Amino acid sequence: MAVPVKLTGMVLNLLTILFLFVCVMNFPAFSEARVRRYKWELKYEYRSPDCFSKLVITINGGTPGPTIVAEQGDTIVVELKNSLWTENTAIHWHGIRQIETPWFDGTEGVTQCPILPGETFVYQFVVDRPGTYLYHAHYGMQREAGLYGSIRVSLPAGISEPFEYDYERSIMLMDWYHKSAYEQAAGLASIPFKWVDEPQSLLINGRGRFSCSSLASCNESNPQCTPYSLTVIPGKTYRLRISSLTALSALSFQLEGHNMTVVEADGHYVKPFVVQNLFIYSGETYSVLVKADQDPSRNYWATTNIVSRNPKTTPPGLAILNYYPNHPRRSPPTIPPPGPVWDHVSPRENQSLAIKARQGFITPPPKISDRMIVFLNTQNRFNGFVRWSVNNVSFNLPHTPYLIALKQNLLHAFDQTPPPDGYDFKNYNIFDVAPNKNATTSSGIYRLDFNSTVDIILQNANTMNVNNSETHPWHLHGHDFWVLGYGRGKFDIYNDPKNFNLVDPIMKNTVPVHPYGWTALRFRANNPGVWAFHCHIESHFFMGMGVVFEEGIEKVGKLPSSIMGCVHRP
Amino acid sequence: MAVPVKLTGMVLNLLTILFLFVCVMNFPAFSEARVRRYKWELKYEYRSPDCFSKLVITINGGTPGPTIVAEQGDTIVVELKNSLWTENTAIHWHGIRQIETPWFDGTEGVTQCPILPGETFVYQFVVDRPGTYLYHAHYGMQREAGLYGSIRVSLPAGISEPFEYDYERSIMLMDWYHKSAYEQAAGLASIPFKWVDEPQSLLINGRGRFSCSSLASCNESNPQCTPYSLTVIPGKTYRLRISSLTALSALSFQLEGHNMTVVEADGHYVKPFVVQNLFIYSGETYSVLVKADQDPSRNYWATTNIVSRNPKTTPPGLAILNYYPNHPRRSPPTIPPPGPVWDHVSPRENQSLAIKARQGFITPPPKISDRMIVFLNTQNRFNGFVRWSVNNVSFNLPHTPYLIALKQNLLHAFDQTPPPDGYDFKNYNIFDVAPNKNATTSSGIYRLDFNSTVDIILQNANTMNVNNSETHPWHLHGHDFWVLGYGRGKFDIYNDPKNFNLVDPIMKNTVPVHPYGWTALRFRANNPGVWAFHCHIESHFFMGMGVVFEEGIEKVGKLPSSIMGCVHRP
Repeated sequence: MAVPVKLTGMVLNLLTILFLFVCVMNFPAFSEARVRRYKWELKYEYRSPDCFSKLVITINGGTPGPTIVAEQGDTIVVELKNSLWTENTAIHWHGIRQIETPWFDGTEGVTQCPILPGETFVYQFVVDRPGTYLYHAHYGMQREAGLYGSIRVSLPAGISEPFEYDYERSIMLMDWYHKSAYEQAAGLASIPFKWVDEPQSLLINGRGRFSCSSLASCNESNPQCTPYSLTVIPGKTYRLRISSLTALSALSFQLEGHNMTVVEADGHYVKPFVVQNLFIYSGETYSVLVKADQDPSRNYWATTNIVSRNPKTTPPGLAILNYYPNHPRRSPPTIPPPGPVWDHVSPRENQSLAIKARQGFITPPPKISDRMIVFLNTQNRFNGFVRWSVNNVSFNLPHTPYLIALKQNLLHAFDQTPPPDGYDFKNYNIFDVAPNKNATTSSGIYRLDFNSTVDIILQNANTMNVNNSETHPWHLHGHDFWVLGYGRGKFDIYNDPKNFNLVDPIMKNTVPVHPYGWTALRFRANNPGVWAFHCHIESHFFMGMGVVFEEGIEKVGKLPSSIMGCVHRP
Repeated sequence: MAVPVKLTGMVLNLLTILFLFVCVMNFPAFSEARVRRYKWELKYEYRSPDCFSKLVITINGGTPGPTIVAEQGDTIVVELKNSLWTENTAIHWHGIRQIETPWFDGTEGVTQCPILPGETFVYQFVVDRPGTYLYHAHYGMQREAGLYGSIRVSLPAGISEPFEYDYERSIMLMDWYHKSAYEQAAGLASIPFKWVDEPQSLLINGRGRFSCSSLASCNESNPQCTPYSLTVIPGKTYRLRISSLTALSALSFQLEGHNMTVVEADGHYVKPFVVQNLFIYSGETYSVLVKADQDPSRNYWATTNIVSRNPKTTPPGLAILNYYPNHPRRSPPTIPPPGPVWDHVSPRENQSLAIKARQGFITPPPKISDRMIVFLNTQNRFNGFVRWSVNNVSFNLPHTPYLIALKQNLLHAFDQTPPPDGYDFKNYNIFDVAPNKNATTSSGIYRLDFNSTVDIILQNANTMNVNNSETHPWHLHGHDFWVLGYGRGKFDIYNDPKNFNLVDPIMKNTVPVHPYGWTALRFRANNPGVWAFHCHIESHFFMGMGVVFEEGIEKVGKLPSSIMGCVHRP
């Protein structure tokens, strides 16, 4: 295996240098791109992130895994050794567009075969833009088993951000279950359906606090669950790179008594706005600026709370905002702020509307689109199983990855009928439980004209429960999209597009569709490859809430053999 | 994939018919061989075999899986669909020699690549001899996750067994853990070592009884844990095919108030002898004859007890021997018999010595052997991990299966240095903890001259604990061996062979080596292929207690492509 990977690597490096050369022409300075090599080993190990001991997937012993720190234009090489016993894996580099390397997107069933136990798989790709990105397993429900982490791409030396700060810190948010991902998956795929319920705790930088009480496998004095302490120097300004990779939960995040100025979202500069609570959905990243301008004689709470769903028994996640030189573990003298009311939708809608591109960094969207696809988000049944669907089709991931099937013309590998571009707009009542709850399933995909401009309308609706509509954060692989608008109720295909923001829309890769609302996106199908677009709630994707786009497959280069382990040939 | 398998299937069928034709020449009658097709699907599902609800691997919904029932000479075709989410699998057909189909032995890392989720793998092999056989996962610790079952091969119509009975029934024995195989494996591969401890219950035909008391996920009225009831008609004689696939435990089995006459072991006829307790080790099968000759007005207990290890909190496994027409669930009026004392070794040694081939069915062993290999069984440390070793080498399974590596000359795939044929006979004290506990690890194998006769001496020793030596049941793939003798203490290479039983030794595929004792085996290396030989305690093999033999690799036919999924090529 080693030889072809090395050859591919050489070709990639040449392409990278060429590509960078083209890219940096716009920038005033140019520091040479580097190759950053990581050697990672995946294992199952016992860890106690919230004091409860549980088998988790670690990278080099940790969960979350190591942060990838790079400069724009660098090439990242991750040699990933799968030392799980019987379980395969694949890692997605979330927010990295994988231009010219669509085979290293890490999406099992879409861009690669799974990586077998004992195998070492080499991911190699260029981080072509500065910003805050993520990585996580994209196979089964391994993300919530602990396989996740951050990618931080800085500007080359000599180039400044359009805002000032003294230091930067990363904040990774996660919700945490005590049941294994296996047990959760078994419940989701059972008749009767067995919901995993709300998480047991929320983690900030991999640390949370479950009230152990009488549980044998729980120990509140385990150092692994000591709350994270964010130490700041009074008077200094901090850039916090805040990310969420929750399995389920929409979150708010706040720093007691401090304002946060949002300046980056999913790698794009934001027209600054101030929040006390930052709402963040699974798969999103933000940078906020915080000045340590409060009474320096004490510490403050950093808290995260569940919103959009009733948190029931899930306690808030707590960390300590530590003003130096106070002791980093000294509890603040106050009780933690309660966080926003979980079922108030307007504050969250308002934040969504506030996120626009920063002046001077606006990439204007094409004025018109070539195709509009409306995705009705519904909860359904199929053969008695509870499923999620778009346009009444529940997605079924095939076992031969689309990228391979399409390049090699393996037509039997997936359903050749594309799923529909819309639903019964006129008659479907999005505010009510559907009279016919049944969906179909398909592995069919959307084939997009290369370089065409595509509008996506995410249309939310009522679930199978009366008066219930959930928030779904949708994530697009291989692209950023412009966020053209949000609205309440049913999207009006004639009138709502008139109000699209074509002036300063933010570009993102993950965006929520709010309860009973719609979200409008636009993107250019200009990245040859096959790309998943799905709800980032891990159980929702597991239950079929996703689609796949193909574009420019004929422009995709020679696939590396390392991705093809599951495709048998005589 | 379908096409090459079908082609292979056709070739196999032709070979099968040819082979059968040669075989049946010795038999007085010949009923036509049939192809028996099975479609199996593996899933993770919640089951409560001992009243405690746990995620298990099911075949078509059950654990144990369906019994394969065939006649001698039949071809078995199992289309195995792996519907586990992220986990591979492989199934070994235990006791089936796979003559001319060494690639379908189902031993991951030895004879095939693992079967990926979503894949359908077709096993196809001939059951060439009557007898009681087994199947089970041979990958990670999936056997104890519930993936196991029986194979029952009867004589062709018109041919009789050399003993008489009215009916036959199968009894499958298993020990059962509440922790997942993942949690168990994680403990075994941890520093400090975390032993899984004794099982929570013993299952008879997949049913046991855990005292639920206050456990939430336990329900004593769940019908899945209703004790098995073996209904007999007074006066009739029953052939019980008793098998064990325990993860760990050596067992005794008894039928309260009834004698059992042992007539078959591992598919070979035994010179009949009578027992009240049948000792049975993981991987063994026996047939016993039982006459329902006791007071028919009541039911009796069928019990299984742990021997060789202190059972601590593991309760006996219970079933009901139901005399028709009493109610099958009526409890016997007696308390269950206590079973033999767990740490008395002599009764178990005596049973081993009593098992000889039946007159008229003796296959005489070659009088001399070409090679003798002594395997010292020890518990060791390697890099701080607790391991098991033979001759101080702890076995490391490679990820490219030996069969493929050897056929395709992939020399890098495993250590080319063979492990040693013996140990320091003179100086090693088998009765004491070794002064140097450290072992090495290797994936090296033993290469045997084709058609040579090989003697194996299993030499037991003290573990890393003072005054402790465990029983290890060793299982050989691809062959039966003659059991030439058992002894206490250190095998005397000069004098003990003089007492080998060359007159009427039983042939078996699994045999125990008793604490501080030795067991002598002989086999002909006449089955082209690559074959594992290992302790059948699942955790011991996981921790390195095994070896691999190669013989006649140049005579192995073209490997089917379906076994090669893990071997990447440019």
